[in-house]
Amino acid sequence: MYTLYYSPGTASMVVHLALLEIGAPYQLELVDFDKKAQRDPTYLKLNPNGLVPTLVIDGQPRVESAALLTMLAERHPEAGLMPPAGTPERELWQQWVVYLSNTLMSAYRLWFYPEELGNEEHPPAVRAALQRKIESVWDHLDAHLAAHGPYLLGAQFSGADLLLTMLMRWSRNMPRPVTEWPALKNLANLVRARPSWKKLYELEGLTEW
Amino acid sequence: MYTLYYSPGTASMVVHLALLEIGAPYQLELVDFDKKAQRDPTYLKLNPNGLVPTLVIDGQPRVESAALLTMLAERHPEAGLMPPAGTPERELWQQWVVYLSNTLMSAYRLWFYPEELGNEEHPPAVRAALQRKIESVWDHLDAHLAAHGPYLLGAQFSGADLLLTMLMRWSRNMPRPVTEWPALKNLANLVRARPSWKKLYELEGLTEW
Ligand SMILES: N[C@@H](CCC(=O)N[C@@H](CS)C(=O)NCC(=O)O)C(=O)O
Ligand SMILES: N[C@@H](CCC(=O)N[C@@H](CS)C(=O)NCC(=O)O)C(=O)O
Repeated sequence: MYTLYYSPGTASMVVHLALLEIGAPYQLELVDFDKKAQRDPTYLKLNPNGLVPTLVIDGQPRVESAALLTMLAERHPEAGLMPPAGTPERELWQQWVVYLSNTLMSAYRLWFYPEELGNEEHPPAVRAALQRKIESVWDHLDAHLAAHGPYLLGAQFSGADLLLTMLMRWSRNMPRPVTEWPALKNLANLVRARPSWKKLYELEGLTEW
Repeated sequence: MYTLYYSPGTASMVVHLALLEIGAPYQLELVDFDKKAQRDPTYLKLNPNGLVPTLVIDGQPRVESAALLTMLAERHPEAGLMPPAGTPERELWQQWVVYLSNTLMSAYRLWFYPEELGNEEHPPAVRAALQRKIESVWDHLDAHLAAHGPYLLGAQFSGADLLLTMLMRWSRNMPRPVTEWPALKNLANLVRARPSWKKLYELEGLTEW
């Protein structure tokens, strides 16, 4: 049994999508950012960093969206979110998930939380550098998908595409949203056409892409 | 057969340590940063981002140190670098590896490469914020180890400790090096006493902790 602590459209999204793809029973607990519920002492016991997502697995709180995706993928091999052990595709999957985590996840964190760099708002040079960093990842991924796509692993959808599509979605109000990169836009459309994506929009009350 | 493209003391270190722990045959290829060899067109074919490490596995170049650690751990279960599938310890391992990647790896990247934020040198406020970010991770980890250590997973050493000790080593010239946190210092000493650590210092020509 799983309980997901989430906030709509945030980093919990990839875990929620994975749960929907798997079809396992789970409970949802809203962490209300408007009420700063992520700083609530009860929540900090589950997640000392005061972030979402937290996934409670068999009574144990676990954190870090990319790790939670991996845990769920390994627990439910029949859902095909991750290639089987001992295949080169699995290693590619691991490489992409860590790469997305290291580059996009951390750059977005700075983009959306200027206080992490001691600013209330980023000076224009920092903003431009972060934008450049995120766009250089789009360049790299778009070239990869154009040559080896449509999915990150090629012909076959996997959980890594859920993580990437969540991260792509966060660019929608940036100066150059990811939909300007054709192979990435194509991947986003494939993932957005999945029943899990539609169901998540309903359950989390999302409207904007 | 493995070939590791490395530069002494950098992010390739955790992969090199894992290879030594495993005892598998491998070849070393130095990527000479003084000669900007990481930007060499031949190297960029292996690693389009121009970073070390790259590990060539059965002829396939793979990147991202935390992913390479995971790949090696899965390929050589007898080395005990990662707990077996289906155990709660494995999920903790995955959580820590992603956490270290997301927090320390990305904060260090900014600390050591100010140009990533569009500066030749960081303004003091940014430097202070990055230092705070890194130190808050030490606080969090030290509390965890004091309660549940001496290793990240408890009584048992794992590959996650190699990753953490590499990251700890990078703090040695920072205003507050990690050795000021007692439980972290203790973990560092345990890892530094391992034959793999000593062998790596010899092979990479390292002297400073
Ligand atoms: N590395 C973490 C990042 C989680 C994270 O930054 N979550 C954000 C939402 S996207 C959050 O909880 N923000 C609330 C806050 O910082 O107070 C993960 O991938 O799970
Ligand atoms: N996320 C990558 C980071 C690799 C990285 O930043 N490597 C640094 C050395 S620690 C590098 O290659 N620097 C050379 C450069 O940026 O030109 C990983 O963990 O493998």
